[in-house]
Amino acid sequence: MIGKSVPRVDAYDKVTGRARFTDDMILNHCLVAKVYHATIGNGRVISIDTSEAEALDGVVKIVTFKDVPTHPYPTPGHPWSVETAHQDVSDRNLLTGRIRYYGDDIAAVVAEDEVTASRALRLIKVEYEEYPVQIHPRESMKGSNPPIHQEKKDNILAHSDYEIGDVDQGMKDAAVVVKASYKTPIIQHCHIENNISYAYMENGRIVVVSSTQIPHIVRRVIGQALGIPWGKVRVIKPYIGGGFGNKQDVLYEPLNAFLTMAVGGRAVKLELTREETFVNTRTRHSIEYDLAAGVDEDGHLIAKDMHAYSNQGAYASHGHAIVANGLTAWRLQYGCPNVRAEGYTIYTNTPVGGAMRAYGIPQANFAMECFMDDVAYAIHMDPLEFRKKNLIKGFYQDAYLKPIAAHSNGIFECLKKGAEFIHWEEKRKEYANQTGNIRRGVGMSLFSYKTGVWPISLEIAGARMSLNQDGSVQLQVGATEIGQGADTVFSQMAAETLHMELENIHITSVQDTDVTPFDTGAYASRQSFVTGTAVKECAQLLKEKILAYAKTLLPEAVGTLELDHGYILENGEKVLSLEQLALECYYSLTNSSVITAEVSRQVKKNTLATGCGFAEVEVDMALGKVKVLNIINVHDSGKLLNPQLASMQVQGGMSMGMGYGLSEQLLLDEKTGRPLNATLLDYKMMTMMDTPDLTAGFVEMDDPEGPYGNKALGEPPAIPPAPAIRNAVLHATGVAFNENPLTPQRLIEAFQRAGLIPVVG
Amino acid sequence: MIGKSVPRVDAYDKVTGRARFTDDMILNHCLVAKVYHATIGNGRVISIDTSEAEALDGVVKIVTFKDVPTHPYPTPGHPWSVETAHQDVSDRNLLTGRIRYYGDDIAAVVAEDEVTASRALRLIKVEYEEYPVQIHPRESMKGSNPPIHQEKKDNILAHSDYEIGDVDQGMKDAAVVVKASYKTPIIQHCHIENNISYAYMENGRIVVVSSTQIPHIVRRVIGQALGIPWGKVRVIKPYIGGGFGNKQDVLYEPLNAFLTMAVGGRAVKLELTREETFVNTRTRHSIEYDLAAGVDEDGHLIAKDMHAYSNQGAYASHGHAIVANGLTAWRLQYGCPNVRAEGYTIYTNTPVGGAMRAYGIPQANFAMECFMDDVAYAIHMDPLEFRKKNLIKGFYQDAYLKPIAAHSNGIFECLKKGAEFIHWEEKRKEYANQTGNIRRGVGMSLFSYKTGVWPISLEIAGARMSLNQDGSVQLQVGATEIGQGADTVFSQMAAETLHMELENIHITSVQDTDVTPFDTGAYASRQSFVTGTAVKECAQLLKEKILAYAKTLLPEAVGTLELDHGYILENGEKVLSLEQLALECYYSLTNSSVITAEVSRQVKKNTLATGCGFAEVEVDMALGKVKVLNIINVHDSGKLLNPQLASMQVQGGMSMGMGYGLSEQLLLDEKTGRPLNATLLDYKMMTMMDTPDLTAGFVEMDDPEGPYGNKALGEPPAIPPAPAIRNAVLHATGVAFNENPLTPQRLIEAFQRAGLIPVVG
Repeated sequence: MIGKSVPRVDAYDKVTGRARFTDDMILNHCLVAKVYHATIGNGRVISIDTSEAEALDGVVKIVTFKDVPTHPYPTPGHPWSVETAHQDVSDRNLLTGRIRYYGDDIAAVVAEDEVTASRALRLIKVEYEEYPVQIHPRESMKGSNPPIHQEKKDNILAHSDYEIGDVDQGMKDAAVVVKASYKTPIIQHCHIENNISYAYMENGRIVVVSSTQIPHIVRRVIGQALGIPWGKVRVIKPYIGGGFGNKQDVLYEPLNAFLTMAVGGRAVKLELTREETFVNTRTRHSIEYDLAAGVDEDGHLIAKDMHAYSNQGAYASHGHAIVANGLTAWRLQYGCPNVRAEGYTIYTNTPVGGAMRAYGIPQANFAMECFMDDVAYAIHMDPLEFRKKNLIKGFYQDAYLKPIAAHSNGIFECLKKGAEFIHWEEKRKEYANQTGNIRRGVGMSLFSYKTGVWPISLEIAGARMSLNQDGSVQLQVGATEIGQGADTVFSQMAAETLHMELENIHITSVQDTDVTPFDTGAYASRQSFVTGTAVKECAQLLKEKILAYAKTLLPEAVGTLELDHGYILENGEKVLSLEQLALECYYSLTNSSVITAEVSRQVKKNTLATGCGFAEVEVDMALGKVKVLNIINVHDSGKLLNPQLASMQVQGGMSMGMGYGLSEQLLLDEKTGRPLNATLLDYKMMTMMDTPDLTAGFVEMDDPEGPYGNKALGEPPAIPPAPAIRNAVLHATGVAFNENPLTPQRLIEAFQRAGLIPVVG
Repeated sequence: MIGKSVPRVDAYDKVTGRARFTDDMILNHCLVAKVYHATIGNGRVISIDTSEAEALDGVVKIVTFKDVPTHPYPTPGHPWSVETAHQDVSDRNLLTGRIRYYGDDIAAVVAEDEVTASRALRLIKVEYEEYPVQIHPRESMKGSNPPIHQEKKDNILAHSDYEIGDVDQGMKDAAVVVKASYKTPIIQHCHIENNISYAYMENGRIVVVSSTQIPHIVRRVIGQALGIPWGKVRVIKPYIGGGFGNKQDVLYEPLNAFLTMAVGGRAVKLELTREETFVNTRTRHSIEYDLAAGVDEDGHLIAKDMHAYSNQGAYASHGHAIVANGLTAWRLQYGCPNVRAEGYTIYTNTPVGGAMRAYGIPQANFAMECFMDDVAYAIHMDPLEFRKKNLIKGFYQDAYLKPIAAHSNGIFECLKKGAEFIHWEEKRKEYANQTGNIRRGVGMSLFSYKTGVWPISLEIAGARMSLNQDGSVQLQVGATEIGQGADTVFSQMAAETLHMELENIHITSVQDTDVTPFDTGAYASRQSFVTGTAVKECAQLLKEKILAYAKTLLPEAVGTLELDHGYILENGEKVLSLEQLALECYYSLTNSSVITAEVSRQVKKNTLATGCGFAEVEVDMALGKVKVLNIINVHDSGKLLNPQLASMQVQGGMSMGMGYGLSEQLLLDEKTGRPLNATLLDYKMMTMMDTPDLTAGFVEMDDPEGPYGNKALGEPPAIPPAPAIRNAVLHATGVAFNENPLTPQRLIEAFQRAGLIPVVG
């Protein structure tokens, strides 16, 4: 069953529109909440007048920052820690009078319907005291008065660094030292389903139904934000229309919970608009990198130095973990005796940076892989050749976090496959000496990526199975289907280990923290690895219990009993159907006991997935246009659980990566920090017309750590396209772009500066 | 915690209207189904024309008996049996062209809304061939042509008998032989919430949300009725507005499931009207009894003989189990060396008899306890004295079903309490020689009642618990809250065994067969006994796991660890809070594993609860009116789990029992079998104005078999009032009524026959 391209278990329901998302489950007579957002970028509320809004017919309740309890809470979807030092920063409250970014949450309206709620918002009057707005991290870290958060006078949320070997000496010893700076933009996840939840009370407890990747964490954070015992909160997660990390944050669920309490437990819905999803949820951090490398005569890296400045925006959210993930990546995969890195995470008055597919690596990898090309160019070496020379073959492990290791390592095979696809050798030569406005080039990049978060943080997953009367099996996991196909591969895993048909595994897609085994959720490409481990063990346990019960029904059996496709086999011969056995265990008058199994498993392992991207582009320099002619991602993600789903995962990630490289950026007004293009019309994502065939290649290494030989695949596909395209543009034009996306404006300005096209007008 | 009158865990939500019942959970855009019922009492459909109805705008689908698959299925809420001989009778299909009672289900309409569905029903045209209607069992068992069901040519669904000792000889040896016949009426449960369900499809499976006492059984029967694997069905049970056994049958859920399949999986709601609930669901069987007893010179029973004829109505449903339960009761509790009984269950053309609170015993007990008075009168002995002389003291067990035994027996204490309350001695004398039209009397009755169904059928229950991060506990059971307070007492049990506060037990009230531990449901007064056993064991298991984990956190602890009110105690001293422990088990980086426990427990035990009722009445013979002045039930139900809830349970049962004695009966047209009073206006239930203070008395014996010393209490309260009132009327007037209810018409006719009041006009 593992390795087969079975259709998704939810395919039919999702294609026919029958699958139920949060909005499909909303109760009749549900009240509607809307949030009043600040219209300044930095400052404080001097006065707020809600009287006119409250007088509006149909308005049920208005709460302002003055009405909410003070329980500062953290929002990131991380496992909690019992050690204070490892806990996330708690720097926000349900509502605030201290405005830290344009759009900050000041008040909320609860009304009988959406129109009334919207009208009420327009009747609220607020007076502000304004402070200067700072949207650039390197400026913000010089400090501001007042600071963005009182606890961090210099606006620096966190700083960390490390040094392996002696980088300064390495630089001195180097034949060539190359330095360059890179910057990545603020972008947004743009999941199809905007953030939405509804909440009500039930027997003195709060129930929140939410489109989230992390129901068990939402439960905990609501408890923290409201200052109530966590067990008083129940979170339900239906199907969700994408998250990409934005729903790995606890966003408006705590406010939604508070609002239902404020109206005596009546159901209240809180659904964001697309504009709010852009501005008031999370973004991918913009990070600035200053990199340096020293190489020896042979082109070996002998010293590397990274200084990174991450723009956190107004609140801590996932905070320093993002830039820190890049610092770790900086020391992996390429062999280099002397490596140094430091990173700053800096509060500014911008929308809040959080988790987004690949968690800091798209930024760091853009910088690193652009830089690898720039270093190769500086020493006149083929960029692929330069990388191969410096890449570690086979096993390696992180210098500090030992479990983070390449237990299997298919990067060289990946590079071979990618280079062949793009005709690297031929095209690097063919495109060497072009003239004219339209030029072509090939570029590439590579990456390695952790599977889950151990040992940086906790990894734990739960699974429960029960045997139905017909011999089919119910499967519950705390891990979440977020569109990636998790339900399907978990079902495949159960079928594989139980030797059953897939159609006899019935997975419960909805998580309900009251009854669902604990799992931290969908992030860090962890689920098929961590939860997969729990599913496998749970299936093994269920099988053991089934065979033990079979023994009681077959007291004279002397041979080995096995479970195979709905039958108990004794020495390979069918002796009892699983349905018969199940009926006995349910209904036997002598010995009935329904067979269930449950596992809660801490997973103390990790493994590095790897892969690369190759792109061929055509650059129309006069138009400032990059057309991607061919593109491939080649992944070593261990054994593929479902090749079809794996390809779709890669294609989706490549599309995202291309948008990151070419067009996506959330623009902010310099003076107010107000987002300028927070709509899907103005924010430019890839469309089908921008997208060539997306080729997904795989090198299947059977990973010894993966429960079914598998490694991370959820996030990595988004990593390589942006630097591969940038490097292809470099190859085509000789111009090294150090900032993505490669928009027409940025391209034209650079080509003009390089004298490749004339300055017009 | 056990024995405390804590408020119901669902009290607040139910009082404020927030508790969600099936109708509150119905999805938007749900289609509405209505059933087309036969308008003859016996016959077959010659032709059916749905064309006009189908042409109506808004009609989505019409199915008739010709469109449904043929999978005859059983409907009673019994555990399934792997032995064919023990399986329930499968004598019905989803729809039928062979009409067996007035109202039988011929077709169903699915429409966009209720009005359209109702209009469509009126456009369906049916032609019938009619057969003679038979509503009396002793006539029906003579046979009919054609028989009601082809498989039972003589219309006898089942017959059973037994004889202990030699009854004929006993009768010969007796000083006095008394014979009498009794008859009980057809009545209806009249639960507040009519039967309702809605169904939809999800990933190729069928989901049915239903107001049922037995979700896991509904799942199975839908599978049987549709001929699909049982694992393809998911049943969800929200709060339900009463059932009293009527929702211990699988009624329209299979048809509802079929209808959603017929419309491609769209959600379809099927809600019965009150009239349909009266006619098309289930009723309490009318049973006719011929009894005889021989007593010796001292007033000891030396022979007893029962012949019972149960009117099953048109379909088997719970069938012979009802009358058989009375046959068993006939040989229990009263000592008698020679006992014989036989019972017939007979198909007729009446609404279907099924389970109703106390499952055959209100009928048998009415006959038996009226008879005990009649025998006492025959030998001129005080009825209470006569009973005491013949009752078994202390332990006794059933002659055939050994586990059915009085492991504790408080009947004598109950009688003492009841007699004192009603002032038996004084009033039996005081009312001995009355004259005039208005007379008073005191009467009593007693009973014993099994707890659960073992060893007649399977008893199995499941429970699962998980420890929350705040040290509170989630509790899931497959047993069902149906208004009786089950959720509250299960929570108390968990709190008791875990030594926790009740507020820290969070019970999941909704059952969902996909995730809820298996349990057969709410019936037979089984849950606090059978499920209670599973809850207790599950709590013990959870406690063991908590203490084992505590050991890992307290490696230096040498003393005994205990769990007490949120703390781990070592030798009685607090050493760790349960919250700290819980946080560690969730989040420890060294050893995290969320603590859960699950039990699926077969319970091979039973125990007899007992009790009595005493009533004082005033009979206005001219008006044909019985006024109950004082009434008490005294129960030995073992240790009371929650005295307040127990009292409420008793009061509700007493009200039902009074209605059974005085006013309730479903009247049928002799010629067509058409119910004549199938509305709450015409069918006379007790109201507050008819009801005196209802006194609930208890004798708390600590039963050795009950998990917390408890025995049956759910059903028994409904048993004693009817015969106690009838016996009080006998005491007041000297007239022995042998048929309930004691309606004005029946009273006046009897008093006229007895010459107590004049025949007018």
